[in-house]
Amino acid sequence: MSIQSRLLAILVSVFILSGAAFAGAVEDELMAVDRAFNAMAQEDGVGKAFAHYMSEDARMLSGGSQPVLGHEAVAAAMAGYPADATLVWDPEEAVAAASGDMGFTWGRYVSTFTDAEGVVHTGHGKYVSIWQKQSGGGWKASVDIGNTNPDPAESSPE
Amino acid sequence: MSIQSRLLAILVSVFILSGAAFAGAVEDELMAVDRAFNAMAQEDGVGKAFAHYMSEDARMLSGGSQPVLGHEAVAAAMAGYPADATLVWDPEEAVAAASGDMGFTWGRYVSTFTDAEGVVHTGHGKYVSIWQKQSGGGWKASVDIGNTNPDPAESSPE
Repeated sequence: MSIQSRLLAILVSVFILSGAAFAGAVEDELMAVDRAFNAMAQEDGVGKAFAHYMSEDARMLSGGSQPVLGHEAVAAAMAGYPADATLVWDPEEAVAAASGDMGFTWGRYVSTFTDAEGVVHTGHGKYVSIWQKQSGGGWKASVDIGNTNPDPAESSPE
Repeated sequence: MSIQSRLLAILVSVFILSGAAFAGAVEDELMAVDRAFNAMAQEDGVGKAFAHYMSEDARMLSGGSQPVLGHEAVAAAMAGYPADATLVWDPEEAVAAASGDMGFTWGRYVSTFTDAEGVVHTGHGKYVSIWQKQSGGGWKASVDIGNTNPDPAESSPE
């Protein structure tokens, strides 16, 4: 093995190992970004939060609707999120690629809406967001998809 | 700049550029894997295909159900897929991380089930699969999630 080959092997190993060490840090970052996304939804409204956090090439895959593609269409669709509705979520887990430029979070959400009689209806579900690091730094969600499930508190444990 | 620093900079550049060139190839691979996953579902049944393609740490996030976590639980849940039901899907797009170890596909599916009177009911939806390269080579899906939408053929164009 030539000295060049050895050097290359060492450098590639260092690169891969530093990538592996980096992955845990990226996953912590993604958990924090997803929680910040939720915090913005509570403070500024769901529409503004999605407009801020979804990427230019965003794919919004909401239940009951056709796919909504591209930031402009996503922002327009989410701007119509009802003022008498809430959406609160919390990630359970984040997993990142070795390169630290892509990862996903998944978790559960609780939605409510208040009907004309003032009765609050509560829904439960789960979601996946796929995050891509932006060339200018920071993370945006390229994909958002979710679906409903029964209230986990009322489900029999498996 | 020392010779070592220059060499490191060159090697890192080569590594990053080869990663970028690689990304298109990885995306082609993911489209092919997702289509092979569908082909197996048609030939061997939905249950066997999910048992084959979902990872050890799979997260199956089906509408109407609580999250199903881990390969054993996913395989058990999908083994119960009704024999008189079909699920056919086709990816629209794949996107991969620069490191080529993670990516996602999303697309549309058509499901059918035949009721006791022999009437076929057809459903439409969309899905996201997140793929991770396995240490032994090959891809497995770490996440599967989908939801329903109206028949796209009957939807008014946006």
